[in-house]
Amino acid sequence: MTSFSLTILGSSSALPTSQRFPTAQIVTLSEQFYLIDCGEGTQMQLRKFRFRIGKINHIFISHLHGDHYFGIFGLISTMQLLDRKGDLHIYGPKGLKDAIGYQLDHFDKLSFPIIFHEIETNGICRLYESSRLIVESIPLKHRIPTCGFLFREKPRQLNIQKEAIEKYSLSIREIVQVKNGENVVRENGDTILYNDCTLPPEKPRTYAYCSDTLYKEDIIPQIKNIDLLYHEATYMHNMASRAKETFHSTALQAATIAKMAEVKKLVIGHFSARYKSSKELVEEARTVFPETYAAEDGLSFDV
Amino acid sequence: MTSFSLTILGSSSALPTSQRFPTAQIVTLSEQFYLIDCGEGTQMQLRKFRFRIGKINHIFISHLHGDHYFGIFGLISTMQLLDRKGDLHIYGPKGLKDAIGYQLDHFDKLSFPIIFHEIETNGICRLYESSRLIVESIPLKHRIPTCGFLFREKPRQLNIQKEAIEKYSLSIREIVQVKNGENVVRENGDTILYNDCTLPPEKPRTYAYCSDTLYKEDIIPQIKNIDLLYHEATYMHNMASRAKETFHSTALQAATIAKMAEVKKLVIGHFSARYKSSKELVEEARTVFPETYAAEDGLSFDV
Repeated sequence: MTSFSLTILGSSSALPTSQRFPTAQIVTLSEQFYLIDCGEGTQMQLRKFRFRIGKINHIFISHLHGDHYFGIFGLISTMQLLDRKGDLHIYGPKGLKDAIGYQLDHFDKLSFPIIFHEIETNGICRLYESSRLIVESIPLKHRIPTCGFLFREKPRQLNIQKEAIEKYSLSIREIVQVKNGENVVRENGDTILYNDCTLPPEKPRTYAYCSDTLYKEDIIPQIKNIDLLYHEATYMHNMASRAKETFHSTALQAATIAKMAEVKKLVIGHFSARYKSSKELVEEARTVFPETYAAEDGLSFDV
Repeated sequence: MTSFSLTILGSSSALPTSQRFPTAQIVTLSEQFYLIDCGEGTQMQLRKFRFRIGKINHIFISHLHGDHYFGIFGLISTMQLLDRKGDLHIYGPKGLKDAIGYQLDHFDKLSFPIIFHEIETNGICRLYESSRLIVESIPLKHRIPTCGFLFREKPRQLNIQKEAIEKYSLSIREIVQVKNGENVVRENGDTILYNDCTLPPEKPRTYAYCSDTLYKEDIIPQIKNIDLLYHEATYMHNMASRAKETFHSTALQAATIAKMAEVKKLVIGHFSARYKSSKELVEEARTVFPETYAAEDGLSFDV
């Protein structure tokens, strides 16, 4: 099965620590890299964890707080130095284009085009679609316009049964046909039913990134039953009122969302610098949702 | 003697590597920190090497290429989160205020004042003066307006001779007087010559930071006989024409400047990512100026 994974590049909240860089993540699917948020130092983390910067064509920015995008200037500058030619797509709320454009004006002329896609963060918008993947926005509630991102793999082809190839003497063209769910009708009139030579495909996988947000049950229908959920957990629940004031969530709240949405696995992150380790946050979340794990810089999760 | 030292926070050229962050340095004198340049990730390096961000009151930016200032947005943002109150002075070429201001507009109102000091990079300007230190600009030649910085310790007080305190029964007030180079005249008419109870002070120490620049002999008079010189050395000398094209220097050229200026020690940095180690660059420089050392992230040098 094609690999579909998430790697944490930065897991701090606004104040980075000696262990945690500001927020950034890489989603890998079919050897394509999708960058989610781009806090300061993202390009250094990409190098450290050995992701090729030239293979990033799509960058999704959740909101315009510096800890989620101050790394984009340096990343674009580096792409330029690496003599990039291909289009770079950047998705983000209104204002991102101007913020980047302001710094870019100091660069020599870029060798590659940047295509900005402005996100209307109030609704669910389809942002990107390829043959394998759909990315849509998740409306969140933070101090400024903010959204999350849902990565949905497209339904995959049927799997061929190896025995069937021999049994029916299937040609390459016929194999493609049945994998696409089409019956084969031969010149002599024989019909081979695709059902007789294929197995159902694996269930499409899904990953949702819920960036800085208040506890918000409205998002549950959109992320129902997904495989992997990242949800911010800036505070422990004994600081729930501080979380509410600053439009953030607690570990317990992240776990409650995961439980209500019946997701398979939860990753929490964006930890306040006051917590020396993620242990207590994970323990708190596990009281509600046992399949909870902590985001740590460099750590990967299969979707 | 009060400590006066330089710590390298970032030593790469425009393209950071897994070993080197973009340019930034900390000068420490009398427990004050002075930040020189502020490439992406500077705040993370400050944490890593245990410099207290709250103790930085002066930031000197040599020029507006991103690898020398893209870390300043995050650093200011962090100062805000740490609830800074005191003035922050930022010195840099025209344009820096607008570049920072553009990103700051997205912040909540800052809790502290920023005072911008625009540098005219064509001449030698006195930028900063305290009771212990003078900082002046060094005109350099790069693709955009650029300057270096000369940190000159002020002449220090005379040193008291311990035996003289007893011999002349010097009071605290009299000790201060002779250390300031004044003779003491007592009520009974006795005169104590400051020369008889003091020793000359240590020679004031000097550090010069020569950021991105073409080989430029004009700077030599200004840095003559200083204790420590940092000079960029982006390339080996077999790439001298590439260095000239991009307004950079070679290791050999940096060493030639150091030799002609008769400085005590040379630190080279801003190495192109093509060099896997600094060894060959240092070896090249040492053929001309033996007291050459490589900038490495985290490394400190006494001035």
